[in-house]
Amino acid sequence: MKKFINDPQQFVPEMLKGIALANPATLVYVPKYNLIHRIDSPRDDKVTIIQGSGSGHEPAHVMTVGKGMLDAACPGDIFAAPPMDYVYETTKLLASPKGVLLLVNNYTGDRMAFDMAQEMSEADGVKVKTLFINDDVSVEDSTYTVGRRGVAGNFFVMKAVGAAAETGADLDELVRIGEKVNSVTRTMGIALTACTPPSKGSPLFELADDEIEIGVGIHGEPGRRRAKWMPANEIIDELLGAVVPDLPFASGDRVALMINGLGGTPTSELYILYGIAHEKLAAQGITVGRSYVGEYCTSLDMAGASLTLVRLDDEIERLLEAPAEVAVRIF
Amino acid sequence: MKKFINDPQQFVPEMLKGIALANPATLVYVPKYNLIHRIDSPRDDKVTIIQGSGSGHEPAHVMTVGKGMLDAACPGDIFAAPPMDYVYETTKLLASPKGVLLLVNNYTGDRMAFDMAQEMSEADGVKVKTLFINDDVSVEDSTYTVGRRGVAGNFFVMKAVGAAAETGADLDELVRIGEKVNSVTRTMGIALTACTPPSKGSPLFELADDEIEIGVGIHGEPGRRRAKWMPANEIIDELLGAVVPDLPFASGDRVALMINGLGGTPTSELYILYGIAHEKLAAQGITVGRSYVGEYCTSLDMAGASLTLVRLDDEIERLLEAPAEVAVRIF
Repeated sequence: MKKFINDPQQFVPEMLKGIALANPATLVYVPKYNLIHRIDSPRDDKVTIIQGSGSGHEPAHVMTVGKGMLDAACPGDIFAAPPMDYVYETTKLLASPKGVLLLVNNYTGDRMAFDMAQEMSEADGVKVKTLFINDDVSVEDSTYTVGRRGVAGNFFVMKAVGAAAETGADLDELVRIGEKVNSVTRTMGIALTACTPPSKGSPLFELADDEIEIGVGIHGEPGRRRAKWMPANEIIDELLGAVVPDLPFASGDRVALMINGLGGTPTSELYILYGIAHEKLAAQGITVGRSYVGEYCTSLDMAGASLTLVRLDDEIERLLEAPAEVAVRIF
Repeated sequence: MKKFINDPQQFVPEMLKGIALANPATLVYVPKYNLIHRIDSPRDDKVTIIQGSGSGHEPAHVMTVGKGMLDAACPGDIFAAPPMDYVYETTKLLASPKGVLLLVNNYTGDRMAFDMAQEMSEADGVKVKTLFINDDVSVEDSTYTVGRRGVAGNFFVMKAVGAAAETGADLDELVRIGEKVNSVTRTMGIALTACTPPSKGSPLFELADDEIEIGVGIHGEPGRRRAKWMPANEIIDELLGAVVPDLPFASGDRVALMINGLGGTPTSELYILYGIAHEKLAAQGITVGRSYVGEYCTSLDMAGASLTLVRLDDEIERLLEAPAEVAVRIF
């Protein structure tokens, strides 16, 4: 294993320290709870939005804390749910009189930690609601999940509720918006290679030199099937063939199209996928109204990509258009 | 080789088409000359800024076209200088009465193409100046270079002249600013793995499972030496040990610090490197005033990173702070 690391046990804390040092004017790092929060949170006039998950999916979620997005992220270790008491302490520290919205990708460990933290916070008198995200159409139930997994589509839920919260929307309204966006968001991914967790030191699963995993999960969970490598045109057929009929998306729809890199795939290849998907959707009468190409939710150094579609309406589009400022940038 | 591609010969055109489809309101793609330009360029009141280079370094330069940055990019094939006539046609198409500034990373093939295009454009009566960027401290002369190579530090030159051009600065002023920024910018990179060019189909060079290349070029050119893998702390010592004394940067300096991913390295590891470098610079009395973490100039799917320092003064910092809008984003 060749990575830019010191001690695998310090991977997450060293990354979080780097994020805080690079963003001293906007972010605060609380080492005790693996917590990154906005320097101006909590605010009395705004619902606090917190997302937690295992690490290894960056920029999700520790690099998506900022104005118009999350108030805080409380990550666990690599691919491990955050400890329940970290979620509880984060909720306590950032509680607003307007309430706290917890965003959780649908994995059993994360659900357990957040459910318990919600109960404990409510016992303290904090108003808390939790919203589960499950956009991955690949499989029902999986290695770490009952039901569908939450993957890169979580970005759109974060972005929409983040924008609404800035304008003073109350907790029930944020839950309505988040559930609505989740309900029209669908994703599927493909792995070209496995990822290598730092503590394991070797690839998480075996994939032959000419094989790909169709429908892979962001923790390397199995997807729908193994297949031989295929050209980008056919990859997009596989992804659209799973995602489009699932909602279903239909001729006349206006959508957001995201091509998300899984960590080890160069941006050039993501734009090749994007161009193909855009044209194939157009051929089905589906118009891409907003485009997203880059890394949103990764799986360490996995070479691979996922495709997400969101059915837009005026409300969702306005929330996605709203400004936001987070750590991930090239400026 | 497993990549998201169709035909390797169509890698660059398919990528460029994807970029244009994802940015219909701001960018135009001219397939005949591999050209991406701003929809509102050329403008009579603004010097036109064009950068060309081989492809495979995305986001450089085709994804850094936009307000406050480049007016156009004319890329060659993967790791190949753009054809001279493409540069000439690009210059002709985008010529402004205020002149054209050509930015070129210092490689022999690129210099030749841009020098000839400049001569031909001047014969047409276009006012053109060319600025060469050579920030890589690793080696003097190299596989494709006489003198030093231009690498990720080119971002700061583009950003500074791009900002100045938006405020109406004339051609001579832009050359002065660009040369000034280049003169205080220093970079060195490290490869953990080789990259695989699509047409070759196999890694460009051999690197053992426990080896790294210190001072690698962005086309896989050799650096200073091979070494055994080392922890991130020691990697940063190697990079700062080469970059800091070269200018030299000294106690009391205020700098921009960039940790640039080479294409296959996850953002999490880049932030680990960033945090270490930030603290080691502080220990030397060097203050990081601006931070840049992400992919700016890559080498296809190479796992690796480079470190760039820029010595800031009020003028440079103001230009780096100015707003810019380019295709690369997560929003």
